[in-house]
Amino acid sequence: MVQKAWGGRFAAGTDHRVEQFTESISFDRRLFKHDIQGSAAHARMLSRVGLLTPEECQQIVLGLSEIQAEIEREDFSFVLEREDVHMHIEAALIEKLGDVGRKLHTARSRNDQVATDLKLWVRDALDRIDARLIDLQRALCAAAERHRGLIIPGYTHLQRAQPVLAAHYFLAHLEKLERDRSRLADCCKRMNVLPLGVAALAGTSLPIDRDFVAHELGFETVGANSLDVSSDRDFALEAVFVLALIAEHLAGWAEEWILWSTQEFGFLALPDAICTGSSIMPQKKNPDVLELIRGRAARVIGALTTLMILVKGLPLAYNRDLQEDKEPVFDAFDTVEACLDLAAVVVAGASLRADRIAERLDEGFLDATTLMEFLIQQEVPQRTAHAVIGRLVSQCESRGLKRLADLSDADLLAAHPSLGPGTRERLGVANAVQAFQSYGSTAPEQVKTQLQRWKNKLGL
Amino acid sequence: MVQKAWGGRFAAGTDHRVEQFTESISFDRRLFKHDIQGSAAHARMLSRVGLLTPEECQQIVLGLSEIQAEIEREDFSFVLEREDVHMHIEAALIEKLGDVGRKLHTARSRNDQVATDLKLWVRDALDRIDARLIDLQRALCAAAERHRGLIIPGYTHLQRAQPVLAAHYFLAHLEKLERDRSRLADCCKRMNVLPLGVAALAGTSLPIDRDFVAHELGFETVGANSLDVSSDRDFALEAVFVLALIAEHLAGWAEEWILWSTQEFGFLALPDAICTGSSIMPQKKNPDVLELIRGRAARVIGALTTLMILVKGLPLAYNRDLQEDKEPVFDAFDTVEACLDLAAVVVAGASLRADRIAERLDEGFLDATTLMEFLIQQEVPQRTAHAVIGRLVSQCESRGLKRLADLSDADLLAAHPSLGPGTRERLGVANAVQAFQSYGSTAPEQVKTQLQRWKNKLGL
Amino acid sequence: MVQKAWGGRFAAGTDHRVEQFTESISFDRRLFKHDIQGSAAHARMLSRVGLLTPEECQQIVLGLSEIQAEIEREDFSFVLEREDVHMHIEAALIEKLGDVGRKLHTARSRNDQVATDLKLWVRDALDRIDARLIDLQRALCAAAERHRGLIIPGYTHLQRAQPVLAAHYFLAHLEKLERDRSRLADCCKRMNVLPLGVAALAGTSLPIDRDFVAHELGFETVGANSLDVSSDRDFALEAVFVLALIAEHLAGWAEEWILWSTQEFGFLALPDAICTGSSIMPQKKNPDVLELIRGRAARVIGALTTLMILVKGLPLAYNRDLQEDKEPVFDAFDTVEACLDLAAVVVAGASLRADRIAERLDEGFLDATTLMEFLIQQEVPQRTAHAVIGRLVSQCESRGLKRLADLSDADLLAAHPSLGPGTRERLGVANAVQAFQSYGSTAPEQVKTQLQRWKNKLGL
Amino acid sequence: MVQKAWGGRFAAGTDHRVEQFTESISFDRRLFKHDIQGSAAHARMLSRVGLLTPEECQQIVLGLSEIQAEIEREDFSFVLEREDVHMHIEAALIEKLGDVGRKLHTARSRNDQVATDLKLWVRDALDRIDARLIDLQRALCAAAERHRGLIIPGYTHLQRAQPVLAAHYFLAHLEKLERDRSRLADCCKRMNVLPLGVAALAGTSLPIDRDFVAHELGFETVGANSLDVSSDRDFALEAVFVLALIAEHLAGWAEEWILWSTQEFGFLALPDAICTGSSIMPQKKNPDVLELIRGRAARVIGALTTLMILVKGLPLAYNRDLQEDKEPVFDAFDTVEACLDLAAVVVAGASLRADRIAERLDEGFLDATTLMEFLIQQEVPQRTAHAVIGRLVSQCESRGLKRLADLSDADLLAAHPSLGPGTRERLGVANAVQAFQSYGSTAPEQVKTQLQRWKNKLGL
Repeated sequence: MVQKAWGGRFAAGTDHRVEQFTESISFDRRLFKHDIQGSAAHARMLSRVGLLTPEECQQIVLGLSEIQAEIEREDFSFVLEREDVHMHIEAALIEKLGDVGRKLHTARSRNDQVATDLKLWVRDALDRIDARLIDLQRALCAAAERHRGLIIPGYTHLQRAQPVLAAHYFLAHLEKLERDRSRLADCCKRMNVLPLGVAALAGTSLPIDRDFVAHELGFETVGANSLDVSSDRDFALEAVFVLALIAEHLAGWAEEWILWSTQEFGFLALPDAICTGSSIMPQKKNPDVLELIRGRAARVIGALTTLMILVKGLPLAYNRDLQEDKEPVFDAFDTVEACLDLAAVVVAGASLRADRIAERLDEGFLDATTLMEFLIQQEVPQRTAHAVIGRLVSQCESRGLKRLADLSDADLLAAHPSLGPGTRERLGVANAVQAFQSYGSTAPEQVKTQLQRWKNKLGL
Repeated sequence: MVQKAWGGRFAAGTDHRVEQFTESISFDRRLFKHDIQGSAAHARMLSRVGLLTPEECQQIVLGLSEIQAEIEREDFSFVLEREDVHMHIEAALIEKLGDVGRKLHTARSRNDQVATDLKLWVRDALDRIDARLIDLQRALCAAAERHRGLIIPGYTHLQRAQPVLAAHYFLAHLEKLERDRSRLADCCKRMNVLPLGVAALAGTSLPIDRDFVAHELGFETVGANSLDVSSDRDFALEAVFVLALIAEHLAGWAEEWILWSTQEFGFLALPDAICTGSSIMPQKKNPDVLELIRGRAARVIGALTTLMILVKGLPLAYNRDLQEDKEPVFDAFDTVEACLDLAAVVVAGASLRADRIAERLDEGFLDATTLMEFLIQQEVPQRTAHAVIGRLVSQCESRGLKRLADLSDADLLAAHPSLGPGTRERLGVANAVQAFQSYGSTAPEQVKTQLQRWKNKLGL
Repeated sequence: MVQKAWGGRFAAGTDHRVEQFTESISFDRRLFKHDIQGSAAHARMLSRVGLLTPEECQQIVLGLSEIQAEIEREDFSFVLEREDVHMHIEAALIEKLGDVGRKLHTARSRNDQVATDLKLWVRDALDRIDARLIDLQRALCAAAERHRGLIIPGYTHLQRAQPVLAAHYFLAHLEKLERDRSRLADCCKRMNVLPLGVAALAGTSLPIDRDFVAHELGFETVGANSLDVSSDRDFALEAVFVLALIAEHLAGWAEEWILWSTQEFGFLALPDAICTGSSIMPQKKNPDVLELIRGRAARVIGALTTLMILVKGLPLAYNRDLQEDKEPVFDAFDTVEACLDLAAVVVAGASLRADRIAERLDEGFLDATTLMEFLIQQEVPQRTAHAVIGRLVSQCESRGLKRLADLSDADLLAAHPSLGPGTRERLGVANAVQAFQSYGSTAPEQVKTQLQRWKNKLGL
Repeated sequence: MVQKAWGGRFAAGTDHRVEQFTESISFDRRLFKHDIQGSAAHARMLSRVGLLTPEECQQIVLGLSEIQAEIEREDFSFVLEREDVHMHIEAALIEKLGDVGRKLHTARSRNDQVATDLKLWVRDALDRIDARLIDLQRALCAAAERHRGLIIPGYTHLQRAQPVLAAHYFLAHLEKLERDRSRLADCCKRMNVLPLGVAALAGTSLPIDRDFVAHELGFETVGANSLDVSSDRDFALEAVFVLALIAEHLAGWAEEWILWSTQEFGFLALPDAICTGSSIMPQKKNPDVLELIRGRAARVIGALTTLMILVKGLPLAYNRDLQEDKEPVFDAFDTVEACLDLAAVVVAGASLRADRIAERLDEGFLDATTLMEFLIQQEVPQRTAHAVIGRLVSQCESRGLKRLADLSDADLLAAHPSLGPGTRERLGVANAVQAFQSYGSTAPEQVKTQLQRWKNKLGL
């Protein structure tokens, strides 16, 4: 039986089923580097304030780095009776150093230790996500560049609406990811507050120096209220929310590209290398990566829900329920990191099928709004102009004409006196795109400017 | 490079990052027994209808059982390029049997295969959960028996309300679990419909016998519409909902026992073996198991949310998003199974502290309602009686009397003429409990009858 | 100031902000009929056991029916100081009848009263939903009949997979709704247990007859444990789960039809009467109803989540948090009822565009699997046959042939010796559909049988 | 029949059931002020760029302000056939102004209009929430001041852990709310980007000036990509997430105070004015406000879930599903605003019962950790010291001693040689509190400093 570090007041050992049920080592071992990083900083601080001698400190820091090496080369034994990563590392240290090891847990508890470890882990993970967001932005920016000049249908309600430049489309997703980066930065900044040193929940009577530890670990400031710090998981919830919005953005994009990959849309060619086949249907080539990116958004939102439910109604300060925070956090980060990676692979590998898109670009009356605006420019009230063009569309449909341009000059003039000569230059998708001029629109000049802005920003 | 079974129409191999992203073998290997069970039944059917010779069938069934043995003794190599458990087992079979192995996937696809595997797994898992529910019911029933005669305060709004028998309390939780069992049985019955044989989505042109397979695998009936079957995950969602309600019931009970374990309530003594301590505070003995049971409900509800989001808005029939169904299903079952196990351990090990409970049982005016009903029995309208007793309580509080019984006969009579002699026999918690008589109430006779009913039902 | 019925022990009146915050009359007034129905049954029971005289009972029952009429003709004043619907109706009764009215609340509390009211409401609402499910099934069945003979592409991964009969498609959705009906029936049966008579949480010392009340109100049985009944909201959660699955089924169908309504798919013609337009784009005709049905599934799943979170971790018995159960329940029922209604309108009004579908039916190699099965019938192992056909598809694509039938006899024979004469009769979508034969498949005979089964069942 | 503004191309009118199903006027009328504010700014811009004459602009602005006044004095008729608030106001304007009114919708669509309205509404609502957060912080700060010097037990796992100052406790909640304010400010800043002017999805060919509109409406910048803006609901999700975390913080606090209000804890006295009673139990005084605050967190988390599900998997740009965004947003704001209001009322009205708290403050060995740290100060390794004190606690329990101070000097010395004279000054709760010294701890000096910091910050 493993001796529990907290076993002094206990007459009986722990039931094995309880050990199995309460252990966290199976998932929190993942924190080992950050636990060791935190412990080394803590030891240096203890030495600085005289609670360890310089020699003891040196021994501990060395011992910890040996343990890290052992874990990294998988020469370390994890046993569930040791409960968690903190106890494993401390026990290994005590085994190495005896009483010196027994001093490490001075002026701290697992409550502040785990909060510190998890913050260090999340901070690093947010950095990784940010790098992935930039990678994906670069891939989108390159795709915008690559598809310059290509016109695609824009949709609302999934009905063809107005023509847009493909580059404009790619930049739209870039904007969404930029908001994600901004949220991520805010989250990172807000969480960068040191928990360590609040001990169990109330602080300590020992003369510790928390500012020193904060500086060592790169925290901007130090948690000012021990009860708050012990109970706080805001940072985990906020980080997973940030991830969930990234997942949402990816899911929307994936949905679009799944549609674009259909036989019916036919907009998108995905290379074989990123598709898979069917075990029964020989002809199938499926956009599985996109479907999984879409599906995995559910998982990240589910992780957020789990965390929101977990902390609801918990009194101060630490409650064991909080042990359940780690798995959803890890899973959300892993999932979003992988999805961002693969999204960049797909964006880099995919190309829009200009021929297929062009073939049917005249369907859907994509120039109707531009024609309406032509009337407005001639001082026809918008509502009147809307009705005039609406009736022209209706006329086309009943006469089996696919395009407004298929109407005769007489038809146009009959619809409204302002639809005289000059009207025809407004018709057709190419003219419609050229006509745009507002800031943020799909006007070629606008898109060019925005694309250049992004290329500069992303160093492309 | 592993040759994909569906690779015929593909010019290029799969990108390794895509293989890593799309693989499911890391978690669906868990279905191996059910996959083999389904494949063996499928092979016997193929033989029966002449699509395999009896010898081929025998070879396949034997090969499959060898593979099962290899996996069980961990003598089987899983590689992520093989994607999933189905492809692993089929590939191993082909390696053993050559062309005979290549015939197994006749008239089926992974779509119906995985639905069948998952149903078989869920069906077994539901059985395990049901057995655990019964175990916990037995533990609760034994606790009711063990604490016979003990009176505890009943609460509403967490304020002391009326006295109840401890046995009545235990039986309340038994009732909740019985509804869980009933939901579980309905779910089991509804899902017991064979998917296998709908092939990809439309059925097959081969002369298969689905009834035979259903019979072999213990399904009550056969899915009647291939498009429905291919896309259906109702059974997974319903099963996880059933689990989520169990988790809710456990969480409510855990919350209560966490409260009861506090210094302040002091109702409950938990043995050392099911508590853990603090790494810093030497005196601590924490009800971690209960806290984790409470916390893990969040996880199960989160799994349900994930599944609900996952399937929302998917068109027919199979979409790869559905691969994401398995992890939440597995996690929800594992979590609830472990929680039920540990709940039974805790219930069996805990005892209510009769002395501590009795000490403060007179606090909170638990007899006030009985006294009001005494007035009603004398034809005082309820609203009037309520006001009379309300004022008596208020009087006690302002005079610092803890109990209605501390009022004098004169006080009582002054409050209402019907509070004459005989009133005093109605006062006090013991009298109040004895006074109950309605069906389902905490009346000792009622509780005795209900307890006996449960003991009979549970074979205790 | 309104006098509170529970005000006896209170020295000070309630803060108005508190009244505003805690009131439920703004939404629970909706329960008025069921509250009156329950109160009338309760009164008859009180009379039967002698707690009311027959005259008192008659007065109460009459008074209640007058109040119901007043509310129905909107001649009843609701004030938030009266808190909830129960207090409003009781107060109105007392105003009418004085002391007789003050007797109605004998042997009950709001805790059992509201549980009873809500169960009665939910039970009725489930009946309404069931009727709507049948209506929608009928509409789907009629659509199956209407589109008999029409072949559409079936999809997996939203890629064209195999051809299916449109009727088969409609019947798939019918099957899903039938599972919904089955879940609904189980829920209804399980919840049909009377709460009334458990009073606050422990029962009563008055000689009530709960069986009589159950019979009056159509409950099958009587709640056996008062603590369980007071705290139980399983029925609300289960009902909303049933609704959430219905919403999921509708959302999946809506997604499909939104796709089918696109210019690109062009499968579906929606009448003007069920579409709306754009305020700016004159040509737009949007499938808003379908989009809202899809979107509203989010709302129903959200309601379920709210309820799951709400009850998590509540101790026995009643807690005020439970007041929050009603709005999500009402909203989920209203939403699903409206969605079912409109779904039936859309299904009845929509027609598939046979011409547009037929035009491109040859795209996507929908006959590839049938051709593979042709090889299997000639004893080619499935995996080999799969590879052969896969390579043929690949050959078509590289040579720009859209259909397997565009290959020459020599091409086919070169691919495999079994692809000799006779092969050509297997090619093409029409042949592929005819070839199916398995139970539950899209084989015309199968679909005919299933359609007839449904028509009989639905009385069409 | 109401003529639809988009009706030009429609042959048939809208089915009334469809109008009822798709209308949003029943809830979006709430945006009327912001809609008018946006329209007025839009009109001024149109005039500035020459799309309206100054006179037309003046007429429109005046007309809009008349309409606002009509709505405010409830002299405006809402009909569901008019769909939404935008169409109502425009139709009223056209009724007033004829063709001039028909010009207002120039260069905008409902897509950008509703995004603008909702942003304006959310921005105002966030300001209101922020003011409420400050109010609650002030109430907590005043409570900290009011309870200066009072010592209460601190908890982990809801077990008594270490003593803390009540002021420290109040400040813990203040810190949480400060993080909420910080998140709110970030959200506000990030969302302050003008949507108006992206028109339907692609911008416009008319020469609009979006910077002018942004300046008029107080937006810091202008949306740079029309497709992004049309589809973006990040701001709504982020705002509701911010609200959900506030709701979490309130729920945790409410849970605590519900516990503290129990007979068993007895820490808290709530005035009658913020409690309610029972309809059946005359003695009850329930903390309903706290329970509802706890329960309503479920509703806010549910609203977040609804929104997360709603946007998942939507392709660009606007889809009608997004109409469903408003109700959860409104509900989450209303709920959190009311909860913050009432929380401030409760905090201001409640007082901690110093006598009841003091009575049992010696229970739970709250001084054990301080005693352990006394050993550490004498160079006993922490783990050793922990075991020594753990055994002392165990000894107390087995000997029935409630406090470490009840041990004799000999007992202490026998436990460890360092527990000699001087030990006794470390024992007891008062000594333990005095002993703390670390930053952020409950040390009286620390708490005094923090309290002063907050008072300065909050202007108290």
